[in-house]
Amino acid sequence: MSEQNLTIVEPDVGAQMHGWAKDLYPICRSLSGPGVRTTLAYIQKLLPDLQVMEVASGTQAFDWKVPDEWTIRDAYVANESGERIIDFKAHNLHVLGYSEAVDTWVDLGELNEHLYSLPEQPDAIPYVTSYYSRRWGFCLTHQQRQALQPGRYRAVIDADLAPGKLNFAELILPGQSTQEVMLSTYVCHPSMGNNELSGPVVTIALARWLLGLENRRYTYRIVFIPETIGSIIYLSRNIDHLKAHVKAGFNITCIGDERCYSWLPTRNGNTLSDRAAEHVLKHIAPDFKRYSWLDRGSDERQYCAPGVDLPMTTIMRSKYGQYPEYHTSLDDLNLVTPAGLAGGFNALQQAILVVEHDVYPKVTVFCEPQLGRRGLYPTLSTKESGATVRTMMNLISYCDGKHSLLEIAEIIGEPMAKLVEILKPLQGNGLVEVVPG
Amino acid sequence: MSEQNLTIVEPDVGAQMHGWAKDLYPICRSLSGPGVRTTLAYIQKLLPDLQVMEVASGTQAFDWKVPDEWTIRDAYVANESGERIIDFKAHNLHVLGYSEAVDTWVDLGELNEHLYSLPEQPDAIPYVTSYYSRRWGFCLTHQQRQALQPGRYRAVIDADLAPGKLNFAELILPGQSTQEVMLSTYVCHPSMGNNELSGPVVTIALARWLLGLENRRYTYRIVFIPETIGSIIYLSRNIDHLKAHVKAGFNITCIGDERCYSWLPTRNGNTLSDRAAEHVLKHIAPDFKRYSWLDRGSDERQYCAPGVDLPMTTIMRSKYGQYPEYHTSLDDLNLVTPAGLAGGFNALQQAILVVEHDVYPKVTVFCEPQLGRRGLYPTLSTKESGATVRTMMNLISYCDGKHSLLEIAEIIGEPMAKLVEILKPLQGNGLVEVVPG
Amino acid sequence: MSEQNLTIVEPDVGAQMHGWAKDLYPICRSLSGPGVRTTLAYIQKLLPDLQVMEVASGTQAFDWKVPDEWTIRDAYVANESGERIIDFKAHNLHVLGYSEAVDTWVDLGELNEHLYSLPEQPDAIPYVTSYYSRRWGFCLTHQQRQALQPGRYRAVIDADLAPGKLNFAELILPGQSTQEVMLSTYVCHPSMGNNELSGPVVTIALARWLLGLENRRYTYRIVFIPETIGSIIYLSRNIDHLKAHVKAGFNITCIGDERCYSWLPTRNGNTLSDRAAEHVLKHIAPDFKRYSWLDRGSDERQYCAPGVDLPMTTIMRSKYGQYPEYHTSLDDLNLVTPAGLAGGFNALQQAILVVEHDVYPKVTVFCEPQLGRRGLYPTLSTKESGATVRTMMNLISYCDGKHSLLEIAEIIGEPMAKLVEILKPLQGNGLVEVVPG
Repeated sequence: MSEQNLTIVEPDVGAQMHGWAKDLYPICRSLSGPGVRTTLAYIQKLLPDLQVMEVASGTQAFDWKVPDEWTIRDAYVANESGERIIDFKAHNLHVLGYSEAVDTWVDLGELNEHLYSLPEQPDAIPYVTSYYSRRWGFCLTHQQRQALQPGRYRAVIDADLAPGKLNFAELILPGQSTQEVMLSTYVCHPSMGNNELSGPVVTIALARWLLGLENRRYTYRIVFIPETIGSIIYLSRNIDHLKAHVKAGFNITCIGDERCYSWLPTRNGNTLSDRAAEHVLKHIAPDFKRYSWLDRGSDERQYCAPGVDLPMTTIMRSKYGQYPEYHTSLDDLNLVTPAGLAGGFNALQQAILVVEHDVYPKVTVFCEPQLGRRGLYPTLSTKESGATVRTMMNLISYCDGKHSLLEIAEIIGEPMAKLVEILKPLQGNGLVEVVPG
Repeated sequence: MSEQNLTIVEPDVGAQMHGWAKDLYPICRSLSGPGVRTTLAYIQKLLPDLQVMEVASGTQAFDWKVPDEWTIRDAYVANESGERIIDFKAHNLHVLGYSEAVDTWVDLGELNEHLYSLPEQPDAIPYVTSYYSRRWGFCLTHQQRQALQPGRYRAVIDADLAPGKLNFAELILPGQSTQEVMLSTYVCHPSMGNNELSGPVVTIALARWLLGLENRRYTYRIVFIPETIGSIIYLSRNIDHLKAHVKAGFNITCIGDERCYSWLPTRNGNTLSDRAAEHVLKHIAPDFKRYSWLDRGSDERQYCAPGVDLPMTTIMRSKYGQYPEYHTSLDDLNLVTPAGLAGGFNALQQAILVVEHDVYPKVTVFCEPQLGRRGLYPTLSTKESGATVRTMMNLISYCDGKHSLLEIAEIIGEPMAKLVEILKPLQGNGLVEVVPG
Repeated sequence: MSEQNLTIVEPDVGAQMHGWAKDLYPICRSLSGPGVRTTLAYIQKLLPDLQVMEVASGTQAFDWKVPDEWTIRDAYVANESGERIIDFKAHNLHVLGYSEAVDTWVDLGELNEHLYSLPEQPDAIPYVTSYYSRRWGFCLTHQQRQALQPGRYRAVIDADLAPGKLNFAELILPGQSTQEVMLSTYVCHPSMGNNELSGPVVTIALARWLLGLENRRYTYRIVFIPETIGSIIYLSRNIDHLKAHVKAGFNITCIGDERCYSWLPTRNGNTLSDRAAEHVLKHIAPDFKRYSWLDRGSDERQYCAPGVDLPMTTIMRSKYGQYPEYHTSLDDLNLVTPAGLAGGFNALQQAILVVEHDVYPKVTVFCEPQLGRRGLYPTLSTKESGATVRTMMNLISYCDGKHSLLEIAEIIGEPMAKLVEILKPLQGNGLVEVVPG
């Protein structure tokens, strides 16, 4: 992978994000319940203005109802000697997500009907949930399963699955404009890394960077929600406002490993978010993977649904479903690395900066301007300064008020970040005016 | 050729069409005359509501005049012994189409000036006509010609070429809409198969299928005419109505052999007919041949002429001019087969169904619907049911009222016929509404 | 290079242009001064209606000021024996363009600071100018330079660099329409061939051909100017008129060698000029080189600047900066040849004819016309006449009043010149009407 040195990441942001991921890793999250609240409380310490919200089980949200709340306290399978041979306390993936409570003795045959393992990945505990059908079950490595002997087993799940509430959180960072850039990530996955602690920790880091960004052009709406039902609930409460205000947006998931970069566009494609994502990835990772709407599988399914049509594009590292550790215990914090997170952070940060800086520049003189008398020629002539002058002249030649800066960057084949720098003195000299567009 | 099993053809339609072709084969058709009337009378027995029409010789039709009527009774060349060595009764291609009457003795040299044969296809009788210049002549195999000995020959053509009439026929099948789908084929070719008994017999079968089609959305206009002058006459009498009502149309010719499928688009391309034809052929015969408007040569020359611009596209098997037997006695009912005709029928039937079913679907809920509680998930989960659910979700994701079903089929890469089936329960559940478009 | 025989060049135009170039070659031109005036006076003899204009030094033109006038009388470097070892009279490239006056004794070390040579092209005198910084200097071959011995040298430049005027010239050839086709070339280069005596002499020949062209549809505006500052001055005085009237235009430069053809489109591309240039080059030189706006470097930088946006496209032979002799004494009248100039003339002439003849033809009858009774079928049927009839039918099939003749030529893959010939009898017969468009 050839990555141009466009990063403006502080050197320690990768390590910082990895540290947050380590803190959040042991918490057993699901669609609802104490794990989500603990997670949101942790994020709130890093983003004090975060608003945590709740919605009661049974509340209608478009075509859906908010499910019962799930509280898991303990879960294990013990043998006749009382020895725990599958133990939720060892890894919270061992319990089937949203399992109902059980405490029963079964023989191996019946137990097997409640076990989930992966013969083709014998050392991985799979991640399995049953949100909308009541079941109980355990997940284990196939090696563990093959070691099970005939006999009697006690299966215990100490859980509540009952009316309660579902939590999510929102952070609004006002900007010069009431138009918004929306970031969305999810907090419903138990102990896994790329899918999905990478999304929340990169989103936290982006929020903290945006907090410090001077003269934010756009208002930023940053949401931490459970996947699918969370975005449906959030949309059902905000759809009119969002449709009127969201100009660009990013669904943030699978953004922490080092293998590749990838991109999944919105349903109709060609939104500002899509073009920003594609532009940035072309420059920082020319061999990035392009997916299509038909490959979708995350909250863009809701954000870009017919009639919703928010411009939520998805920049990823290794996409869900496309790497072997996906939805297993092998998707851990060895797969997700400080460098992987920092690369993902950088790609999203660059894409946000493209959105922030995409204006319509217009040169104020007819014909080519005389750069010399304006001090716009570099005083020292080097090969690099020659290329910069050439890029500046190319930029000026498209400053017609009809091409946006991103469109110009695409036409002349330069990263937008470079044009932003070149544009500054041209604006300062009054040679170019910009219209927000 | 990979042909997906999309056919909804009754098993015997191929044999039935081939039977009709056998009945029609011996009739000597031309632009006008008893052969055309006998042919239309035969079709009328199969389609009782067919209206047979006539127009007098000399009638003006746009830039053209209806030619004199040609009646051929007998034609032969006999040697000095009175032996018929070229005999119209053996094959009606032996007489030059529209020959004037003659009864004369000539020597071999003069006879040769009136003979047409193909040195490169020595066993084929060529099909030659002289509609607009008065001539007499005979066509024969080159083998026959080479066997001719010097001597005196009697050339007899017992024909009338005189003011009369020209016939054509029309069948209107009313539908829910006054908008029309037009099918046009021609009845002016003597004893040949692919070009052109395949067109009439496939059109008869389509008409009979359409007669039984419940709730026809469109009105169907089905015309049987002589090529070129027939379509010009038909247009000159109906152009305003046709321009106002014809939404899609198919020129039906060369649709009976088994070698390939091919497509010739309208002049401007991209009509609903064009897109339907291309879509169907992509799925039933991915290696079909694509021709361009510059390859035209049938009645689309009139139907798509400037100012006429009817959406008449052409689905064919082997295109006229592109197979060795074209316009010779070798284009017979061995070349045209029951399977070839059935394949052509199926392609046209599928294309008509695409037109019938092309609506603008719109999902009635925001975000992805919950399929489970609506009974839309298959109860038995198999690999195939998983693919069907995926296709259903892809379809729903484009049901935005802005993409037609055909456009969606193209985007998600599925045959329209499959989406029509998937759409039915979604409509039944009230989850999707359709607008005709 | 495959060049179709589309030329309508009089046989001697290449030699004639080469002769003019030989006459103009010795004159020392620059942005301003007597060399430009002598050159314009010579052109005026060939084009008596040429209007020579002047503008005073210091006059503002958009972002620029007209520079002082430069008059060069003599320039040399002599050794201690008084022998001229670099002599402007031997080649006028020996003096740095716009050098200020000097008469001084220097040693070799100091002299070297004022010398320009090309180590990689040791037998070439480079062409160097210093229009906007006051300097003095000499250009010489690297071989000459290496032969210089330590010692004292007298450097003499007998020149004036002082307020005066800058000249340019304009020729207007009225046409049926007040809409204009603009041709622009430059007269500021000293003794060089492809860049740039080829531009002026080809433009003179085009102007003389246009003078004799009957029924010119467009008004022709032909300007001879110094590069950059000249086009800026010309635009500053005429911009409103030009923007309102110029429908097509050609910047004429580097049009005299035999190596290749090339094309540099306007900034936004797809003007009538661009499409005419591309069409002609595709037919006369299918392997022509396509440059982009990012490769620009001549007066299109001004003509196509934001807000100016004149449709000035550039057809060239070897493009400036892309051939080894560029901007050296090796770019002489051996590189530029009669055949090279004639080819360039032909390409521009064809492109102008495309512009002149680009109309919207519309057939006056519905359906295909009957060509026979109109005498439009060739009486002798040959392979070539068959192709011509086919092309005629293709042309007619697109005469719908919506496609221009150039668009039709592109669709049917024929050179526009051929369609112009085929269209004539169709118009004459009243079968096709044309709308200017």
